[in-house]
Amino acid sequence: MGVIARVDDYLTRFLDHQHLPPNLDAAIRYSLLGGGKRVRPALAWFSAIACGGCGEASLPAGSAIEMVHAFSLIHDDLPAMDDDDMRRGRPTLHRHTNEAMAILAGDAMLSLAYEAVLTHPEPAIALHLCQELGLGTRRMIEGQVYDTLGGMPGSLSEIECVELIHRNKTGALLRASCRMGAISAGASEAALDAITRYSEAIGLQFQIIDDLLDVEGCSQALGKATGKDQAAGKKTYPGVLGVDQSKLLANQLGKAAGDALGELQAMSLGDTTHLRAMGEMLTNRSA
Amino acid sequence: MGVIARVDDYLTRFLDHQHLPPNLDAAIRYSLLGGGKRVRPALAWFSAIACGGCGEASLPAGSAIEMVHAFSLIHDDLPAMDDDDMRRGRPTLHRHTNEAMAILAGDAMLSLAYEAVLTHPEPAIALHLCQELGLGTRRMIEGQVYDTLGGMPGSLSEIECVELIHRNKTGALLRASCRMGAISAGASEAALDAITRYSEAIGLQFQIIDDLLDVEGCSQALGKATGKDQAAGKKTYPGVLGVDQSKLLANQLGKAAGDALGELQAMSLGDTTHLRAMGEMLTNRSA
Repeated sequence: MGVIARVDDYLTRFLDHQHLPPNLDAAIRYSLLGGGKRVRPALAWFSAIACGGCGEASLPAGSAIEMVHAFSLIHDDLPAMDDDDMRRGRPTLHRHTNEAMAILAGDAMLSLAYEAVLTHPEPAIALHLCQELGLGTRRMIEGQVYDTLGGMPGSLSEIECVELIHRNKTGALLRASCRMGAISAGASEAALDAITRYSEAIGLQFQIIDDLLDVEGCSQALGKATGKDQAAGKKTYPGVLGVDQSKLLANQLGKAAGDALGELQAMSLGDTTHLRAMGEMLTNRSA
Repeated sequence: MGVIARVDDYLTRFLDHQHLPPNLDAAIRYSLLGGGKRVRPALAWFSAIACGGCGEASLPAGSAIEMVHAFSLIHDDLPAMDDDDMRRGRPTLHRHTNEAMAILAGDAMLSLAYEAVLTHPEPAIALHLCQELGLGTRRMIEGQVYDTLGGMPGSLSEIECVELIHRNKTGALLRASCRMGAISAGASEAALDAITRYSEAIGLQFQIIDDLLDVEGCSQALGKATGKDQAAGKKTYPGVLGVDQSKLLANQLGKAAGDALGELQAMSLGDTTHLRAMGEMLTNRSA
């Protein structure tokens, strides 16, 4: 069974144990198990392996982050936020059910995410995972606030604003994915430091490529509407730096990620090739 | 300094340390520090004392529950939910700011609540508090789903439905307040069991009286609109049992709460008089 199937299986069994009201349960499964590339749980899984642990140990963390990611998409799609009708090629949750359910299902998923990390069998690790999940989630929400409601320090340049938004909005949860996978495997401080630098580089790279796809991509490949960033006047890398400079920066970040993995590999803890492959997959993502 | 001032001081210092985006910070402070009786942190404080601990130890737990309570009110007030304009005698957050901010500030407060309980200095207690916060929050959301979106088992009678809603929607967080206060103080299983029975009794009593106030009260005393439950066709105790039977049930629950406190007092751990006074305060609450 591949990582995606393992994560879906874990999430399914986790939800089976919760005995939620059937309409809430259905709403959560619709959003959580309706496809998705499971990038974050895969990063957690392969970070655990790269730090000398087994992928299995990362499942509470990876599943929790996937729940936080899915909750954030549900709330982002709401009419008062991005007002999106489609997500992953299907109606968004508030279109499939209603706005009240989308608000409450998102709230429940955020709370369930903490319950999921607490299932890690090592208490000290469970506690550390909770702290990382809290920080990642909160920074993601801060990024969303900066992106949609402003409030950035007036002293920042335009490109610093874009970076601040993206490091929080997308980067914080990707960073948490890698760190929580490593923590799940009991990683040393040195290994966690290398994983963190890798995650910060690919996090920013991921968002730059997402911005580029929004400019260049087609909605069929993304499963959602494109060109919306520009239409909404949102600050993006290609909007500030231009397409070519943005591609160059994405490649530089890919190299920085590779360097961090090289350091980790030199520690001879575990196999880093999967993380390297994920970095390349993110770089080569295109419509 | 009384309990309310201690909680407000703790929440203020906690927020000072987060360095949130200024607009998000202002929205959270508006909702969290804009009055409120601090019933839940007070229950946590006095539960810690009743179990032989000091009230101080309950502050991470009590503050976390207050954040969860405030987050739930913000989301409940949204147009897609109860669509309320006033709360505690002031405009609701989405009226004071906008809907996107109300959604995101609520999300941030839920996440910050977990960060708050994790500040408890004893790791084993911090972990236990996280579990209780997760369960309480999730059950509260389930209650909200039952109340506004249905999904209750078809086999339940009308009064069983009302009880299921209220035990979750209001009761779960009041139960968590007492249990988390007791856990913060390192309570024994026996003490925790008595506190739990007390909390479940006053939780249901609290909601029955809230239902009665909605029928009998005036909006000035509550700081929010009244008569809305009936207008919205919501299931309430006076609606199903009538006013007199509801008052009788509230009094019976007050007696059950007193009995549980009597058992706790017999353990000679700490002073239970404050919890007894809170129970009486809830019973005598009126417009």
